[in-house]
Amino acid sequence: LSGERIDLPQDDIPRKWYNIIPDLPEPLPAYKDAISGREIKRLPETYTKTASNLEFSEQRWIEIPDEVVSAYIQCGRPRPLIRAHRLEKYLKTPARIYYKCEDLPPAGTFKTNTALPQAYWAMKEGYSRTVSVGGSKTRTKFAHVFAAKTFRLTPTIFMTRADCEQNRDQVFFLKKMFEADLLESPSNRTKTGRIYLKENPVHPGSIRIAMEEIAEEAMLSRDAVAVTSSFLNHVLLTQTIMGLEFEKQLELIDEEPNILIASVGAGSSFYGLIAPFMRDHLKKKLDNVKFLAVESETSSKLTDGEYEYISIQGPMAGLLVKAYELEWEPPPPPIRGEGIKTKNTAPILSLLRYLGVIDTIVYPKDEKAILEAARIFLQTEGHLLAPESAYAVRAAIDESIEAKKMGETKVIVVSVSATTYLEFGEKGGYTSTIGPLPRGIRPF
Amino acid sequence: LSGERIDLPQDDIPRKWYNIIPDLPEPLPAYKDAISGREIKRLPETYTKTASNLEFSEQRWIEIPDEVVSAYIQCGRPRPLIRAHRLEKYLKTPARIYYKCEDLPPAGTFKTNTALPQAYWAMKEGYSRTVSVGGSKTRTKFAHVFAAKTFRLTPTIFMTRADCEQNRDQVFFLKKMFEADLLESPSNRTKTGRIYLKENPVHPGSIRIAMEEIAEEAMLSRDAVAVTSSFLNHVLLTQTIMGLEFEKQLELIDEEPNILIASVGAGSSFYGLIAPFMRDHLKKKLDNVKFLAVESETSSKLTDGEYEYISIQGPMAGLLVKAYELEWEPPPPPIRGEGIKTKNTAPILSLLRYLGVIDTIVYPKDEKAILEAARIFLQTEGHLLAPESAYAVRAAIDESIEAKKMGETKVIVVSVSATTYLEFGEKGGYTSTIGPLPRGIRPF
Repeated sequence: LSGERIDLPQDDIPRKWYNIIPDLPEPLPAYKDAISGREIKRLPETYTKTASNLEFSEQRWIEIPDEVVSAYIQCGRPRPLIRAHRLEKYLKTPARIYYKCEDLPPAGTFKTNTALPQAYWAMKEGYSRTVSVGGSKTRTKFAHVFAAKTFRLTPTIFMTRADCEQNRDQVFFLKKMFEADLLESPSNRTKTGRIYLKENPVHPGSIRIAMEEIAEEAMLSRDAVAVTSSFLNHVLLTQTIMGLEFEKQLELIDEEPNILIASVGAGSSFYGLIAPFMRDHLKKKLDNVKFLAVESETSSKLTDGEYEYISIQGPMAGLLVKAYELEWEPPPPPIRGEGIKTKNTAPILSLLRYLGVIDTIVYPKDEKAILEAARIFLQTEGHLLAPESAYAVRAAIDESIEAKKMGETKVIVVSVSATTYLEFGEKGGYTSTIGPLPRGIRPF
Repeated sequence: LSGERIDLPQDDIPRKWYNIIPDLPEPLPAYKDAISGREIKRLPETYTKTASNLEFSEQRWIEIPDEVVSAYIQCGRPRPLIRAHRLEKYLKTPARIYYKCEDLPPAGTFKTNTALPQAYWAMKEGYSRTVSVGGSKTRTKFAHVFAAKTFRLTPTIFMTRADCEQNRDQVFFLKKMFEADLLESPSNRTKTGRIYLKENPVHPGSIRIAMEEIAEEAMLSRDAVAVTSSFLNHVLLTQTIMGLEFEKQLELIDEEPNILIASVGAGSSFYGLIAPFMRDHLKKKLDNVKFLAVESETSSKLTDGEYEYISIQGPMAGLLVKAYELEWEPPPPPIRGEGIKTKNTAPILSLLRYLGVIDTIVYPKDEKAILEAARIFLQTEGHLLAPESAYAVRAAIDESIEAKKMGETKVIVVSVSATTYLEFGEKGGYTSTIGPLPRGIRPF
């Protein structure tokens, strides 16, 4: 009966995050000032001091504050690792497949892992508001709003007018149910917003404009500070809670992984899963674990991009960081897994890829293989995967099929990073991407 | 840090369901044949033999089959009991509030607790299909489909044409993602359906017709058997897993409850929570625990109904059972908590109410108090409650406010029976009830 679900007792929850920076075989390229080219050792003041300090920390283990541990526990951490017995049986594979469940309440996403400490730091530093940008999906916004509420802060979110109009349910949810300080961007709140509104009073907005607005709001309002969802070192750091937990979970059943799989947008979900294992890997120069990053054809940075200094938008504007970037002209078509459609990956992950310790796989933009994986996983394991997580499960299925062909008993661990419950339906999830089906994307 | 979430280790999962029938102070009134008036000791052959045997069992403890225990574990049982610290702080109450989380994957509902054993019995008895009726909400259907898939059966569901047309996302989800055998009712599959379709080829259907169809399908097809979601004794029996778990969880922290709260439709969620505590209560004739059933003004059976022999539709047609029933002419208006809008309650629960050991509270049909409870709970505890669960939480809040007035340190346990993730949005959850907002129901 046992062995289906590997629970880590609450008392064994990791109390420290793991920082890979001191263990990297070569130094992480410095952040630079875009104008002077000089090395930068702190983040813009739009972020908390703690975030800025952690961004450049050389300390291997970072203590998780008690209040954050407590919040982690209250929202279901340590989260279960499940043996995918029924999926294995369906695939008739000799591989043993485990999935780490991050698709649980409150927000149904791994983003809560970073949203909680960021809100905590904001509270400790005396801010009364967190400011973030909202993409088309509900989950990340939910995580930031939940985290702010947990530490008695007001969550301010800038969401494009186009997204607001196409996702009235989300607006209802965030404004009426959560009482978030939700702004349609461009908004009247900021000077930036007012300029765009003067041009066009019903300006549909864009993520770029929304990011300019949060930068201004966080910079000019004493009570507000920016929080973010991926890319930066301090975000990746907080996500290691996942990998540290499942390392202990595998120890409980005396299992050693051969392949670790997650999908990659900017990469915090993938990094959070692999970092603790990468440590041994780098230290002992082992080659027994495959770290597999799963990408979409629309955004195959790690596979087809260039590793170079790039400039970033929003609160980070003015900084140059070294990362993988993809040429993106014209911008790629919409996909269901919008969450992994980014043109660059996090600096740490980029360096790891550059060092050759990360493998990648790319799936076509028609997403047929992804839908099939989601369908198989739902019917065998009963979890409704976010499309982004279905990319990872697809790769796990393909690795299992390969293991079967080779007659090898591989141990595969895959990240189920999010559910699509909140987005499921005509306005999200599998039936469409954002709003009504855009031209060029057909219903499955 | 601890005490926020009370986890029961997997190995301590209850291995037996609790049957209250032998402990009742007076016998449960017999089921009767509607025509002859004679006592009936088995269910119609539309149900499994196991269900029929358990329906009339006098045995106090019923072993849970190993395969069902294993399936329970795989889908997250034992489920957590959480101390609502933040809610308590918000309410400034001396009460200690705990909630039992049944709002977790796979289906986000307590209905999985009964769907799994029913599908297992079907499989053991050689059937290859389970047949059920689908209401407007996704969760119960999800539970039955998931359960059938778990035991490698085909789930057949009859859903009214009107519901199918108003909930295209659900149809997509059930047919395309889950590959369920979903039929628009009235359907061509049954004689019953064909008669209605002859009258009107685009007949919108009704739950009554769908129930006639599943009765025919289960009776006439050798490979198919009916499964059900509430009301009958064997369903209530399987739900005791919830109360048995949380009894052990409270023991772990040495806490004794004063008030147990759940909302009541037919009553399996409420019963599953209270039955184990009711046992001591009945045996020792104690009066230290309040069992509080929460009803809607539209369907206040236990508060305003009559306890009498009634005849039931669908696969149970032809049987008379004694239960609370409400006069329902004309049928009440739609509410967000449709899941608790039933005109009668389960026979066992009805008897317990008749014996005076259950208290009730009724909330108005405008559901403003319910929305407020859902909002407070989301903002403090981060769980998006199904409207049905928000009724229970509303009552817990009101009891806590009362405890504060009286200066009493009450221990309150409330059932968070389901989430509304899958129904959230324009087509369900809080923004509307079924499909577009019906006339007479206004957006919040």
